[in-house]
Amino acid sequence: MKFGGTSVGDADRIERVARHVMAARDGGYKVCVTVSAMSGETNRLVELTERLGGGDVSREADYDAVVASGEQVTAGLLAINLRSKGVPARSFQGWQMGLATDGAHGRATITELPQDRLMATLDEGGVAVVAGFQGLAPDGRISTLGRGGSDTTAVALAAALGAFRCDIYTDVDGVYTTDPRIVATARRKPVLAYEEMLEMASVGAKVLQTRSVGLAMTYGVPVRVLSSLGEPEETDEGTLITGEEEIVEKQVVSAVVPSKGEAKISLLGVPDKPGRSASIFRLLSEAGVNIDMIVQSPARQGAEANMSFTLSEKDLSHAMETLTAVKGEIGFDELVANQNVSKVSIIGIGMKTHTGVAATMFETLAERAINIENISTSEIKISVLIAADYTELAVRALHEAFGLGGPKA
Amino acid sequence: MKFGGTSVGDADRIERVARHVMAARDGGYKVCVTVSAMSGETNRLVELTERLGGGDVSREADYDAVVASGEQVTAGLLAINLRSKGVPARSFQGWQMGLATDGAHGRATITELPQDRLMATLDEGGVAVVAGFQGLAPDGRISTLGRGGSDTTAVALAAALGAFRCDIYTDVDGVYTTDPRIVATARRKPVLAYEEMLEMASVGAKVLQTRSVGLAMTYGVPVRVLSSLGEPEETDEGTLITGEEEIVEKQVVSAVVPSKGEAKISLLGVPDKPGRSASIFRLLSEAGVNIDMIVQSPARQGAEANMSFTLSEKDLSHAMETLTAVKGEIGFDELVANQNVSKVSIIGIGMKTHTGVAATMFETLAERAINIENISTSEIKISVLIAADYTELAVRALHEAFGLGGPKA
Repeated sequence: MKFGGTSVGDADRIERVARHVMAARDGGYKVCVTVSAMSGETNRLVELTERLGGGDVSREADYDAVVASGEQVTAGLLAINLRSKGVPARSFQGWQMGLATDGAHGRATITELPQDRLMATLDEGGVAVVAGFQGLAPDGRISTLGRGGSDTTAVALAAALGAFRCDIYTDVDGVYTTDPRIVATARRKPVLAYEEMLEMASVGAKVLQTRSVGLAMTYGVPVRVLSSLGEPEETDEGTLITGEEEIVEKQVVSAVVPSKGEAKISLLGVPDKPGRSASIFRLLSEAGVNIDMIVQSPARQGAEANMSFTLSEKDLSHAMETLTAVKGEIGFDELVANQNVSKVSIIGIGMKTHTGVAATMFETLAERAINIENISTSEIKISVLIAADYTELAVRALHEAFGLGGPKA
Repeated sequence: MKFGGTSVGDADRIERVARHVMAARDGGYKVCVTVSAMSGETNRLVELTERLGGGDVSREADYDAVVASGEQVTAGLLAINLRSKGVPARSFQGWQMGLATDGAHGRATITELPQDRLMATLDEGGVAVVAGFQGLAPDGRISTLGRGGSDTTAVALAAALGAFRCDIYTDVDGVYTTDPRIVATARRKPVLAYEEMLEMASVGAKVLQTRSVGLAMTYGVPVRVLSSLGEPEETDEGTLITGEEEIVEKQVVSAVVPSKGEAKISLLGVPDKPGRSASIFRLLSEAGVNIDMIVQSPARQGAEANMSFTLSEKDLSHAMETLTAVKGEIGFDELVANQNVSKVSIIGIGMKTHTGVAATMFETLAERAINIENISTSEIKISVLIAADYTELAVRALHEAFGLGGPKA
């Protein structure tokens, strides 16, 4: 079981987490719990390191020593509360359970996770409460796993312990067919394939990060996302994320995901010479800018081309500066930035075997007079770039077109 | 160098601490720093453990895991700030430096303190920043040393490293001849003997705790108390606490120490039988009550005695209940409690060789018509119990009588 920052945000919530743990124990499970820092605590500690380090010091070992303390506190408090309720429990810091990392401070990767110490506690009938997000670097110092590291800890523990399941408690009650704030009939998915969750995370669904989903897929750990905000008896089943082969009824489209924070850059009148686009993208890559959804089209009798691509809005000004500096060298006529765009994606493992999905998507948007600026696809995803004003309309139309809605609320 | 909670109370103060460390380094010293938690942090964490544990859980290992995080944060932040100023520095948690304890959670004793890991950092020209108050229990869990544990850590480190001196920075600029809020001419002592500081701590002077002073005396570590509230160049020499043999000019009386929070219990008409007082004090000891300043005097033709003793005000009601419950068994006439008392002590290693000190003290008080209720003495201390209203008058009179004052401010 893993409980995030809002789930352990204050003493009352930690007590409720203890009740969830006890309910699982009453259900006959041996329980290993991973906890995050109390909400706000990691930000407070990061700000102190920035204040005293004169900027970002997240690559330093002492940064990790400071921020890892947040999870240490929560784990201790939950163990204390469980014991006060008669449940034998103890906390483990990363170094105590022997979680080894590669030592890349602030963004470490797990290299080893022995199960003997935790299993000893579980075999004695105890609950092991693990401070997430942290491990021991090869030089004997604390290292943290970066944002979302507690989910990664939980999934890695589930794999190491051979757990029946990894339950990730958060402030939503599962993964939905789309954002319920946009579509009132959005439904919670009872089950999703790892690949679907990976694609959803990659286009900005916030529930889980790609890293922990990828780890779960690699080790075949079933992950369940559910809410910690109610009492155990009120809590729904959530969404189970598991292997494609476990899913009997594969839907063609499982979810419609809007993505904010996109921007588009267009280069007009680029001389159409071999290797020209490769040199542009190498330049942006060296500048640390990730790009997506590239479209190239001929212009002026084929001697020149227009090129456009999307990128994260926060990288926009940096990318524009980088390209402006090499305007003469690359030789384009004009550089146009557009922040008024958004990406809408449809995702589903059924696309592997069904045809006509793209046609349905494009027709649905065309019927609403929504112009598609760029398109990108993967085996189980189609994303389109559209004008930002049409985002909600597009999401609602696609959600209906693919029959994702439940009965109207 | 050791910096307490108020000295590291916020980011600005941690930066000032870094400047003190750098000034010491510029003076040619290798520096090992011990830090406390930021002021208020330990209380916040203790309250969370009490809230979630349903009471005092300070004997549990998870209590230690929670509260030790405060020092871990400060140590990391100071190391970050030093490095941002170009000083190679790193933090050490108790378990990282190998500080071993007896495992008595919440009040552990240091059993081993290897110097190799810290010395390696110092020999490379670095500053070792140590999280005070904590070590590693035999079972591999974090254990804390109890209140005042950071001073103890610092003195133990100074002993282990063979340090030239242990500088304890706090929110006062040294140890005074008496409380400057009571006597305007009170002077900072440039030097004090360990025994004097021990006696002062035992009667309630708050600067240092008896435990760290005792450790310093055992290992012959010179300890200096000084203020962290100014910049390094504004900081006075403070008070050096060292061996009696190092002090050239031994003053007869070094300090006058008032002590609040005292109470007095009198048992009137106790049958004067052998072993009667022993059984009373055994009873109180078993009830966890520490007593002090016992006076016994015959009453009614010697068949009965009156007995009185002092104790901490916070133990008064518990002691009264304990004694009331055995009134019949012990057989006294009356039990009288008095909270309106205070203890005033004079302390000085010169008393070992000078006579007439007690006479001067009693005469001085008699001249002001101050009645002495109880007396207790040690080789270098005389304490008297008086009515609380006379506390300040007594302190001023004794301070003057023993020539402790400086020029009037």
